Amino acid sequence: MNESKPLVAVTMGDAAGTGPEIIAKALIDRDATAGCNVVVIGDAGVMRAAVEITRSPIKIRGIKSTEEAAFAPGVIDVIDLKNIDLTHLMRGCVDPMAGKAAYEYIKLAAGLALTGKIDAIATSAINKDALNKAGYHYPGHTELLAELCGVKDVVMMLVSGKLRVMHVTTHVSLENAIKLVTPERILVLLKITDNALKQLGITRRLIAIAGLNPHAGEDGLFGDEEIKYISPAIETAKRQGFNVTGPLPPDSIFFRAAQGEFDAAVAMYHDQGHIAVKMLGIDEGVNVTLGLPIIRTSVEHGTAFDKAGKGTASPKSLIEAIKLAGVMSRNKNAAR
Amino acid sequence: MNESKPLVAVTMGDAAGTGPEIIAKALIDRDATAGCNVVVIGDAGVMRAAVEITRSPIKIRGIKSTEEAAFAPGVIDVIDLKNIDLTHLMRGCVDPMAGKAAYEYIKLAAGLALTGKIDAIATSAINKDALNKAGYHYPGHTELLAELCGVKDVVMMLVSGKLRVMHVTTHVSLENAIKLVTPERILVLLKITDNALKQLGITRRLIAIAGLNPHAGEDGLFGDEEIKYISPAIETAKRQGFNVTGPLPPDSIFFRAAQGEFDAAVAMYHDQGHIAVKMLGIDEGVNVTLGLPIIRTSVEHGTAFDKAGKGTASPKSLIEAIKLAGVMSRNKNAAR
Repeated sequence: MNESKPLVAVTMGDAAGTGPEIIAKALIDRDATAGCNVVVIGDAGVMRAAVEITRSPIKIRGIKSTEEAAFAPGVIDVIDLKNIDLTHLMRGCVDPMAGKAAYEYIKLAAGLALTGKIDAIATSAINKDALNKAGYHYPGHTELLAELCGVKDVVMMLVSGKLRVMHVTTHVSLENAIKLVTPERILVLLKITDNALKQLGITRRLIAIAGLNPHAGEDGLFGDEEIKYISPAIETAKRQGFNVTGPLPPDSIFFRAAQGEFDAAVAMYHDQGHIAVKMLGIDEGVNVTLGLPIIRTSVEHGTAFDKAGKGTASPKSLIEAIKLAGVMSRNKNAAR
Repeated sequence: MNESKPLVAVTMGDAAGTGPEIIAKALIDRDATAGCNVVVIGDAGVMRAAVEITRSPIKIRGIKSTEEAAFAPGVIDVIDLKNIDLTHLMRGCVDPMAGKAAYEYIKLAAGLALTGKIDAIATSAINKDALNKAGYHYPGHTELLAELCGVKDVVMMLVSGKLRVMHVTTHVSLENAIKLVTPERILVLLKITDNALKQLGITRRLIAIAGLNPHAGEDGLFGDEEIKYISPAIETAKRQGFNVTGPLPPDSIFFRAAQGEFDAAVAMYHDQGHIAVKMLGIDEGVNVTLGLPIIRTSVEHGTAFDKAGKGTASPKSLIEAIKLAGVMSRNKNAAR
């Protein structure tokens, strides 16, 4: 065991989806584990089956706690919750058993992170229907983690290459998203973003803020939210010492950020940021939840039920999620 | 003169911007003129200066009408409106003289297209301030052309590679864009889109419709415009025989269309479509105005005043705009 490396726990996600297979593929990639040690929180039986499906040259070792993890080359340490009955698992289908199990992986992971037993969590995809049918009612993974951590103000960051996008709002209607664009929320977001960039080891920390309307409102011609809410927030942030620019036209800010012109771009609503990131490759983005007391990265794709059991799902997003969790952990630990 | 090739007129745009230089570069590209003959509508003196700035191996020949065009290799035929005083032209600045001249190029081009003297127009960028200061008050190029053609219902299509995006709304605030999402407008758009795909020579004509809200509303959880307006429009369109699918999540539809899964994607508002197209390359898109009685393509970038006079602006978007004008003209002529 390499004591100097941070420890990242990968949750197995929905056992009926592609999560286990993606983990089996990701953890043979040396790049993924070069900067961190990894344990999986899941079901060892399901992981063994996933290794067979993907023909990954790696072995599964069931353990009971992080202390037992050995991080031996060619072996995946799985904290085994033994909560999936493999003989009844229907891959590619919504299954309350898998939903309940997925909840238990996340709950354990959050507990271990909050008590410092692990440095970060990288989560595999869960299925919201399965979670619901198991009796856990959350709009999504992020909201579940926020509750487990006792936090309200979280921010979704999507990362793909040099593009890092923070979202002022996410899972609300477009009409409500417009109403939620306030100077207060933008300032909260800026503080969280600036802090996240520190954790990513970025010193310039130049943050670009998108407008809400086409052409950022074109001086009030197409909407006045820029004049009333966004520009005042930017002025306040500048006075507070943040390195921030905007409001910029939404149709070019993300391209410019992806070229490295800005260290982060702030999107006013879900699809501003999501369209930009997904155009760079629909399965390549990483989702990071900022504002939690723990470090949490996630794959940006879903459970991909149509690919479950076929061994064809790409591990790209999970590899990037693990790497990013490692980088953020190292910078957090170095700042202590 | 090759009688079988369609004739595309390129308007010179704002003389103080990069338009003339881009034309001088684009028209030495054999790819641009392989499928069409080209005349420029502009000022021959400005074009000669642009050839010098860009050191393009091409000559400028001033003519008075399309009938005089010779389409000789290495020569650009310019219908010379002699409306720029080169000694007073300030490149990179807003100049009412250039605004007035740009208006005159467009007006002549529209007249020639409406009377069948040319098959299509490919427009260079204009500067809205210059146009305004010259006394012509339009939100943009498209609205000016719509008025010159006596048309109200136009649709903006952006094209980049396989991605073709039509916009239900464009230059209005996001708040108003939401209100303008109606079944009637979507059906008008679908008819215009289907017709445009015919003109592009596409037989499948599979059109995907984006939702308005995140995840296309997730069954009403994040907004109900999909349920109330978009889905009913799609059902009606299907009954009318259109090959249409949706509403699809806005954050994946454009990536899927860019991969060739759909022949066109319908965006509900300006930035849905514009973010997607610009992520593929900010200077590579082509803008097409559908619903006019004439064929009009345009560069998707602006006048780039900061690059004017330097000879460094990329001709990529104009080359694609000329090629697309050629394709649409050939298919329109073949259908006669």
